[in-house]
Amino acid sequence: MDLNSDLGESFGRWVLGDDEAMLGLVTSANVACGFHAGDPSTLRRTTAQAAGRGVAVGAQVGYPDLMGFGRRFVDVEPGALADYVVYQLGALDGMCRVAGTAVRYVKPHGALYNTVVHHEAQARAVAAAVRDYDPGLPVLGLPGSALLRAAEDAGLRAVPEFFVDRGYTREATLVPRSEPGALLHDADAATERVLRMVADGVVRAVDGSDVRVRAESVCVHGDSPGAVAMATAIRDGLVGAGVPLRSFVAA
Amino acid sequence: MDLNSDLGESFGRWVLGDDEAMLGLVTSANVACGFHAGDPSTLRRTTAQAAGRGVAVGAQVGYPDLMGFGRRFVDVEPGALADYVVYQLGALDGMCRVAGTAVRYVKPHGALYNTVVHHEAQARAVAAAVRDYDPGLPVLGLPGSALLRAAEDAGLRAVPEFFVDRGYTREATLVPRSEPGALLHDADAATERVLRMVADGVVRAVDGSDVRVRAESVCVHGDSPGAVAMATAIRDGLVGAGVPLRSFVAA
Amino acid sequence: MDLNSDLGESFGRWVLGDDEAMLGLVTSANVACGFHAGDPSTLRRTTAQAAGRGVAVGAQVGYPDLMGFGRRFVDVEPGALADYVVYQLGALDGMCRVAGTAVRYVKPHGALYNTVVHHEAQARAVAAAVRDYDPGLPVLGLPGSALLRAAEDAGLRAVPEFFVDRGYTREATLVPRSEPGALLHDADAATERVLRMVADGVVRAVDGSDVRVRAESVCVHGDSPGAVAMATAIRDGLVGAGVPLRSFVAA
Amino acid sequence: MDLNSDLGESFGRWVLGDDEAMLGLVTSANVACGFHAGDPSTLRRTTAQAAGRGVAVGAQVGYPDLMGFGRRFVDVEPGALADYVVYQLGALDGMCRVAGTAVRYVKPHGALYNTVVHHEAQARAVAAAVRDYDPGLPVLGLPGSALLRAAEDAGLRAVPEFFVDRGYTREATLVPRSEPGALLHDADAATERVLRMVADGVVRAVDGSDVRVRAESVCVHGDSPGAVAMATAIRDGLVGAGVPLRSFVAA
Repeated sequence: MDLNSDLGESFGRWVLGDDEAMLGLVTSANVACGFHAGDPSTLRRTTAQAAGRGVAVGAQVGYPDLMGFGRRFVDVEPGALADYVVYQLGALDGMCRVAGTAVRYVKPHGALYNTVVHHEAQARAVAAAVRDYDPGLPVLGLPGSALLRAAEDAGLRAVPEFFVDRGYTREATLVPRSEPGALLHDADAATERVLRMVADGVVRAVDGSDVRVRAESVCVHGDSPGAVAMATAIRDGLVGAGVPLRSFVAA
Repeated sequence: MDLNSDLGESFGRWVLGDDEAMLGLVTSANVACGFHAGDPSTLRRTTAQAAGRGVAVGAQVGYPDLMGFGRRFVDVEPGALADYVVYQLGALDGMCRVAGTAVRYVKPHGALYNTVVHHEAQARAVAAAVRDYDPGLPVLGLPGSALLRAAEDAGLRAVPEFFVDRGYTREATLVPRSEPGALLHDADAATERVLRMVADGVVRAVDGSDVRVRAESVCVHGDSPGAVAMATAIRDGLVGAGVPLRSFVAA
Repeated sequence: MDLNSDLGESFGRWVLGDDEAMLGLVTSANVACGFHAGDPSTLRRTTAQAAGRGVAVGAQVGYPDLMGFGRRFVDVEPGALADYVVYQLGALDGMCRVAGTAVRYVKPHGALYNTVVHHEAQARAVAAAVRDYDPGLPVLGLPGSALLRAAEDAGLRAVPEFFVDRGYTREATLVPRSEPGALLHDADAATERVLRMVADGVVRAVDGSDVRVRAESVCVHGDSPGAVAMATAIRDGLVGAGVPLRSFVAA
Repeated sequence: MDLNSDLGESFGRWVLGDDEAMLGLVTSANVACGFHAGDPSTLRRTTAQAAGRGVAVGAQVGYPDLMGFGRRFVDVEPGALADYVVYQLGALDGMCRVAGTAVRYVKPHGALYNTVVHHEAQARAVAAAVRDYDPGLPVLGLPGSALLRAAEDAGLRAVPEFFVDRGYTREATLVPRSEPGALLHDADAATERVLRMVADGVVRAVDGSDVRVRAESVCVHGDSPGAVAMATAIRDGLVGAGVPLRSFVAA
């Protein structure tokens, strides 16, 4: 199983998350590309550290919205969105190149991630950009999302992920953040969920029912105070259960 | 001989220069990379057009200063400057990649261009970034500049250029813009100068003396009202004199 | 009757529109505030010229989106949007202050303008920001829009405007740009429409019917090639018909 | 005596410093204005909190350089710099206006602060901008700086400040950060220095000599881990010594 986390999200004087600690825990690093977070020096440092530890680097592409951290939908015309994705991919790939590695996959960030769950035109734009840039790059996203469908339609590998700290509905979608049960804070409970998902392909939904989920990666957050502790618990739980940890792509 | 020009400098709603016309005239296009000019869609369009016409694409790297169009010195620490150059190189290279080409050389823009004529630390930072990214990329700059020396020290090919519309001192440096004779506006006179430089390696300085200059490329401007006319005159003059026009690198 | 136009939309090296010519024609200048267009020097120059000519300055507030010129919806949380409006209002008012005048009204730009026609939360956020800043400032917008209702609810003066070059539906809304009849290019026809609207409060809709419209200002565009000619025609038409031209507020 | 600190320096998702704690300690808040730090929502919150506590708000103006946090010299032409200062002043004043207060003084930030110690043209540009905006606003800066001279020449009140945690040379200038003795980390020693400066107008220089310093404000930093503890120590020391704490301007 793969553990992925959003990293490289500092910007200039502003530090976010503990990239070094997280890089010791995850197998895939979704590194910001400068549009919603991540200045060039942060990107260079984070990709170099990832390369040094054998962690796969993914392009965490987002809307051009530093002030909103990419967390607000921007109604970008699909052609322009594709251009933004290529630009970000290239910039991060340049950083990877000087670090002796390369971008290995793509994962949209924040509002773009949520938008391409259902917004067909933006989903197809992201997939087209990745295909045009390198058809060998997998796309990481929400199971059942428009993005993963668009990726497959574009001939790309679509990689579904599981969220350790988000509640699931009985339709296997995420409980909206505004509703009860949306967020899990207990590391032990989260670890148990991940182990059950890995072993049985099942998660307990908020209504108490068991629903099937399929994932090739597990997303842990990197920017909250308890992020390192949560990621450590998940990693230890998986290792303790004999689940080999490795990225879904070669690093 | 090569003709180079700054292109891809539009940004969003704001159009600058006539890229299509210029791409029919020059053999090398210094394409902006988004830090001082050039949004992703402009970059994509310009690189695609350059690729279609067999014009070599160079990375026109600059300071992160949209408001100042990269024309103001920014006292960036050399390590950060190198990171900025890698970021811009990678971003433009991504655009080239989807257009079926690649960045072929690097030329600093505006205040960065002027700064690395004499600022050793920034010059070395630019050269180091290019070497780390791809040691096969030439660097285009002012003859005798710290940048070209740093490029050679870094094992890079250093390509000196000639300015068609700038006056030269008897030391073969450019007449500062604030002094008389700094700018030439007459296309015929400019063409004659270029032909003489190409044939004899000599330019008439502002004091009337002839000074030796060596250049592998001729820079024509792309963003002024008379840019297309001037570039056309220079091109026609060179072609008429039987000077083959081709980029100093393979497109 | 008042003539308003979007001005101050240049940014750094990039020039947009002919502000000086337009300031000789209009009675109200919607000046950009730096979020989607307008650098501080442009704002200062434009407000000073407006003050010198007795043209009222309005704050052309928009989304923080230079790359998209504010023409793309951004799903900003209402509280943050209100903060953006206050920031822009204050910045432009500072420029007005050094020019010996003050911001006299507020008009949203681009996607924000279109959004607050129907988006109640963003409309109320804009109105709340204006009220908190200065309850004496009118808000200029589309007749029947959520914005003008929110402005009135907030105790502000709501000023409806008429578009010289847009087609109207029989419901007195604008024909979407994607449909036939959305745009009028003929200056004479546009002038006739304005005169009829001023005289009779009626406009001929795309389906041929006459619909009632009420407006206290007429919007002419400032950034297209024919902008100055169109504005001149409208102005001459109104003056020729004896309609006094003056802003809906004191300059 | 006045205690001033840089506040309002968070940006979007990125938090910097503990503004609420610092606002309980200082009497003057240098609030960032969005060019090098501080998004509109941060500015609004910080100015509202300052107003609520009776802390005077100053405009912490800087270069347009988010990526560099305003800590890098930008060779801005003086006219443009003045425009940037007016823009920032107006924007922050707008935030103050909705909070029921107003900008009370101006203090340059980071590289601009250091530059206007000696750069006459930029110093005069800052002073001219403040005078044009409001000649009643004092300028806070380094004793003996070009800025304070320019402020006085412009008819402004010039307010010299003292740094609690910086070493002084025998010429009463600051020890450069690259030299030994540049920074003091001990809160007790810093407090003692402040008390001696307040009582006797004297500070012990790095060479052991006593030098005269005159200051109407004491600068404490707000963004380092020990900032709150240091500010608390200084405040307690001053209060314990019977020195009344109040801003050099009315809040």
